[in-house]
Amino acid sequence: MRYGIAIFPSKKLQDIANSYRKRYDSRYAMIPPHLTLKEAFEAEEEDVKGIVKHIRNVAKEIAPFTMEVYKFSSFHPVTNTIYMKVRETEELSSLHEQLNSGILAHNKKYQFVPHITIGQDLDNDECSDVYGRLRLEDINHEEKVDRFSLLYQLENGTWTAYETFLLGKEE
Amino acid sequence: MRYGIAIFPSKKLQDIANSYRKRYDSRYAMIPPHLTLKEAFEAEEEDVKGIVKHIRNVAKEIAPFTMEVYKFSSFHPVTNTIYMKVRETEELSSLHEQLNSGILAHNKKYQFVPHITIGQDLDNDECSDVYGRLRLEDINHEEKVDRFSLLYQLENGTWTAYETFLLGKEE
Repeated sequence: MRYGIAIFPSKKLQDIANSYRKRYDSRYAMIPPHLTLKEAFEAEEEDVKGIVKHIRNVAKEIAPFTMEVYKFSSFHPVTNTIYMKVRETEELSSLHEQLNSGILAHNKKYQFVPHITIGQDLDNDECSDVYGRLRLEDINHEEKVDRFSLLYQLENGTWTAYETFLLGKEE
Repeated sequence: MRYGIAIFPSKKLQDIANSYRKRYDSRYAMIPPHLTLKEAFEAEEEDVKGIVKHIRNVAKEIAPFTMEVYKFSSFHPVTNTIYMKVRETEELSSLHEQLNSGILAHNKKYQFVPHITIGQDLDNDECSDVYGRLRLEDINHEEKVDRFSLLYQLENGTWTAYETFLLGKEE
């Protein structure tokens, strides 16, 4: 099965992201707005128990933290993706690092650039047009992150939450 | 904010449900296939802590149980909804009962009929046509349920998982 790990931000931030995603994100209907902590990976169902145990240990070692969204940015020309850029903090890097090591070590396709995607699979013109407008807009948003989720993908491409993990909690 | 409580069944059962929902369910893109334990309800964000505490207490008192899907059925003529009927068990009734009492007591619109919706908002002809075909089909599926989820609804109508609760676990 195909799994992934992500932070779902507050409803407020998800609603803001969706106001763009609706028009610009080819995966709008597949998953709510999120910050990816670990790219999609394959795992056998019988290995999930061990994976969950690892993730619980990671979660309880990291305290809830403040997430800051501070500008719009783009991965163009690597991919025609537009996103809200999230400030890299020690907690976020550590979370990403530990969710991609040990039993969860996989080859990473990209460096970790914490972000919430709002547009993807745009053609070149649309990407530069939309980004050209958004880069002039202010976005300054802070919120507390106290949880993240392990998800799995259904055959139709959508994602279901398997389990949420609370940061800094003893199980 | 608008919250709801549901069981997401296994990927296998969700994929089966989606093979029908894709064509017949107006809410296909809004939420993965699920069994509703508590209908959508309004709650203030500051009350969620108390609600989560209540739900945790409910979850730890009920052991994981077997869920049996045993036939296709319809709510017609009350609503033009087609669903996979789930055997009512003591655990399921108790879960539903406790998730609709105390701090979570609300006026219920319908009696509890455990089910996984696969079609809704169909017109009369389509509903009787689709149900007429499905009622002849066999469906016998059993699986273990060991968790359920508290969800909230975004402005676009889709649902995000806020927290999963494991049955029979001490926190």
